[in-house]
Amino acid sequence: MTKKTTIYDIAKRLNITAATVSRALNNNAKISVATRKLVLQTAKEMNYEQNKLALALKSGKSYNVGVIVPRIDSNFFASVIRGIEEELYPKGYHVIICQTHDQQNLEIENINSLLNAQVDGVLMSISNSEIENNDSFNKLIKKHVPLIFFDRKKSISGVSSVTIDDFKGAYEATKHLIDQGYKRIAHLSNDRSLQIFKNRYLGYKQAIIDNGLEFDESLVIETMSKVAEGRKTTKIFLDMDRRPDAIFSSSDFTALGAIEEIKAHGLKIPEDISVVGFSNEPFTKFMELSITSVDQSPIEMGRIAAQVFLEEVNNSKKVKSEKHIVLTPQLIVRKSSQRLTQLV
Amino acid sequence: MTKKTTIYDIAKRLNITAATVSRALNNNAKISVATRKLVLQTAKEMNYEQNKLALALKSGKSYNVGVIVPRIDSNFFASVIRGIEEELYPKGYHVIICQTHDQQNLEIENINSLLNAQVDGVLMSISNSEIENNDSFNKLIKKHVPLIFFDRKKSISGVSSVTIDDFKGAYEATKHLIDQGYKRIAHLSNDRSLQIFKNRYLGYKQAIIDNGLEFDESLVIETMSKVAEGRKTTKIFLDMDRRPDAIFSSSDFTALGAIEEIKAHGLKIPEDISVVGFSNEPFTKFMELSITSVDQSPIEMGRIAAQVFLEEVNNSKKVKSEKHIVLTPQLIVRKSSQRLTQLV
Repeated sequence: MTKKTTIYDIAKRLNITAATVSRALNNNAKISVATRKLVLQTAKEMNYEQNKLALALKSGKSYNVGVIVPRIDSNFFASVIRGIEEELYPKGYHVIICQTHDQQNLEIENINSLLNAQVDGVLMSISNSEIENNDSFNKLIKKHVPLIFFDRKKSISGVSSVTIDDFKGAYEATKHLIDQGYKRIAHLSNDRSLQIFKNRYLGYKQAIIDNGLEFDESLVIETMSKVAEGRKTTKIFLDMDRRPDAIFSSSDFTALGAIEEIKAHGLKIPEDISVVGFSNEPFTKFMELSITSVDQSPIEMGRIAAQVFLEEVNNSKKVKSEKHIVLTPQLIVRKSSQRLTQLV
Repeated sequence: MTKKTTIYDIAKRLNITAATVSRALNNNAKISVATRKLVLQTAKEMNYEQNKLALALKSGKSYNVGVIVPRIDSNFFASVIRGIEEELYPKGYHVIICQTHDQQNLEIENINSLLNAQVDGVLMSISNSEIENNDSFNKLIKKHVPLIFFDRKKSISGVSSVTIDDFKGAYEATKHLIDQGYKRIAHLSNDRSLQIFKNRYLGYKQAIIDNGLEFDESLVIETMSKVAEGRKTTKIFLDMDRRPDAIFSSSDFTALGAIEEIKAHGLKIPEDISVVGFSNEPFTKFMELSITSVDQSPIEMGRIAAQVFLEEVNNSKKVKSEKHIVLTPQLIVRKSSQRLTQLV
């Protein structure tokens, strides 16, 4: 068996110090790109195998990044994660994922697990329930592990975030319904302790008021982002004496439930009632009655969150700064909200 | 500031040894359930905070389990993961997830990342491409980190697996089409270097032969599990002089593509052509033209894979044994394959 190559062997071959080799292998910013390339190439030629754990213990870096999301079986979160991976893999980082199922205790445990796994940073979308204390977030901050929120965030000093302009997305979706001639527009809302759902509600409300329609609080019901919940809540709307002629849903899943319930009542979409969702999940496009929705550019959101992480982790200065990036959503109009008759 | 509680404080309070406290906190099988409960309760009362990393270094356990899947944005894999979590969370384990995007290099890097993160076990579904060497798997085995395959497996000595009977699932789906009167049944196959797709092909073929139909190799085309690929391949079928009257797809995603392409050609489903998928993804149920598919009990698969892991990790004997559990799939008949006219 041949002896294992060490950083000293590489240093000897290149006539540089072992410290320089170590720094180059650790992507230290002090090393020039040319030197780094040369070291990496030589290390490869000499079959040098980095013991990443030893590396992590020495350099304090594991090159693992943790991503925490409420659920992985949503195209939105899966796409954000894809964006994060696309940005981080070429930089030598790996992405490990945890899901919270919207449970706060799992959120705290996930943060602890990722800390124990020695991650270099945590990119996360917080859970649905209102979080009262910041202990687990503060633990990350104290250990100088960069924390970046995406989509579902909380305001914490020193923590950057990447979100979309939910107010604007909801405003434009509601305005589109008004432009199509709908007058009594209901809103399937969601847990408004989360800023995203609060802002979607506020955008909806503002569009109603700005366009001279009556704002009726009884047409706003909070529900959960699930098909069955969408059906249940829509039944309440349909049983009203003056039922709505359009529904703006803060989630595509509840929008799908709304469509099922409306059909079960023998009503026509979009002639009798119109439905608009939020998130642009793929099924909204694939359905025979395609659903109008608001696209949130999830891959872009993931890429930018990863870039913010890279800036923070490579920032050798001790000055902490916060960055808040807000992306503009895009309304995608489909069959579920376009009345067949021309409205003049 | 009060002094931090140590295991010695807990031992003193309970009049037992620190070693017993440590073993109880580490879920050591030698400790009775009653003692373990008492220790955990006392630890909680005394605000004892386990430093899990220190624990991992001492006990060799991190209570993190890694799960590697080809992709997270598939209901099948997301459901398997949910099953794993449901089984492991109550036992104090956490689940961290990596995806390979069917790339072998990412598979190897994911295994390394999880090893560096000190996971206690790896539950995985291997990537689509044929893997030539077992180095990364052997690395896990050498380090005594339990490795369990689910769904997409490879035969490696000492490695347990949980799969479904893909042959049977495909056989029954094809038999169902034959029973409905279809005579020229095509097969949208997938990378047959993977056992699951090979077995689905073999089950399809056997059903054709057993029922006295002509087996025509030109009606079998390998494609990728994507909607666009399903469309492309189906176009080839539809352009044939003697086009098929049914398609059995090894994936729901290619089945969806097939349906789109058949509709674009102005043909009727299931009157002109019938389509059957595989996996029972939720969209197959939600579509107006619901798709017949084969359910793989993913949550059950995840739960069982987790149980096999728990058996291995708690096995103090040094005798290695393999377990291969094969679940029976279930055909769910929907509109896409039921001819409206009664066939006698």
